[in-house]
Amino acid sequence: MGGAIDELVKRNLDHRADSESARAARPGLRVAVLTCMDARIRPGVAMGLELGEAHVIRNAGGLVTEDALRSLAISQGALGTREVMVVMHTRCGLEGDEHELRKELARAAGLAPPFPLGRFASLERALREGVQRIRTTPWLPHRDQVRGFVYDVDEGRLREVEI
Amino acid sequence: MGGAIDELVKRNLDHRADSESARAARPGLRVAVLTCMDARIRPGVAMGLELGEAHVIRNAGGLVTEDALRSLAISQGALGTREVMVVMHTRCGLEGDEHELRKELARAAGLAPPFPLGRFASLERALREGVQRIRTTPWLPHRDQVRGFVYDVDEGRLREVEI
Repeated sequence: MGGAIDELVKRNLDHRADSESARAARPGLRVAVLTCMDARIRPGVAMGLELGEAHVIRNAGGLVTEDALRSLAISQGALGTREVMVVMHTRCGLEGDEHELRKELARAAGLAPPFPLGRFASLERALREGVQRIRTTPWLPHRDQVRGFVYDVDEGRLREVEI
Repeated sequence: MGGAIDELVKRNLDHRADSESARAARPGLRVAVLTCMDARIRPGVAMGLELGEAHVIRNAGGLVTEDALRSLAISQGALGTREVMVVMHTRCGLEGDEHELRKELARAAGLAPPFPLGRFASLERALREGVQRIRTTPWLPHRDQVRGFVYDVDEGRLREVEI
């Protein structure tokens, strides 16, 4: 019990903070990346992010939820980011049928969450809708550099989707 | 314009996918980490996460929002994670006065988001409330290994908070 968390705490003891590096809260590249929680995605590694360069927002799917918009509002309005990169990915567990997933979660816990799980039938359509949702949110100050990408979890490669 | 995103796309071209490594969606360590979007936190680096080991959920503050709970429900109910590590951090931009932040965002965009921003007065209290919210969410199947930590962004060190 508690094995995984204990392991991560142990690994943290071997981590050394970059003493010279970014101590400022404002991301150096002035960009926020929104992507999926998926274990096969390491945004820092895949995009070579250095400490202090970007905000990284992650949830199941990389969906533009109200909570993602809350995070983006703070990222832009208080911490100076100007661009938003939405990165969804191949073989995402959220691609599929909402009802099937709801049944699966109800089986696991005895009951299902009291709100939609955000499952989608088409990855590219979900990405387009997400990018458009950001672009049309009036209380976000910077909406002219919002772009959408699909990350291939097998190849490790980003592909931009024109939106 | 578009400078930061173009830079990250360029860096991705230098990234090689680990051809031998985890192609399975289920996290190897069976753990989900919830933390802040802050640019000074790189969970993979700070906790030595290997590809495929953990789900990583991030939002402004590392708050246990409805969207974070949605992600945890899918992480546990469909993808087999068992433990949850909530990691908030020192010098977080969400520590402070909600009203002040709301005014700042309204100045930046002309209007403020139509929902609470989640600002909190006490980091440890917010962390305790978040961990308790997970532990008391009946539709999450695994709630006996939910632990809370404060990450020191200057020292790079995790400190567990007993809850």
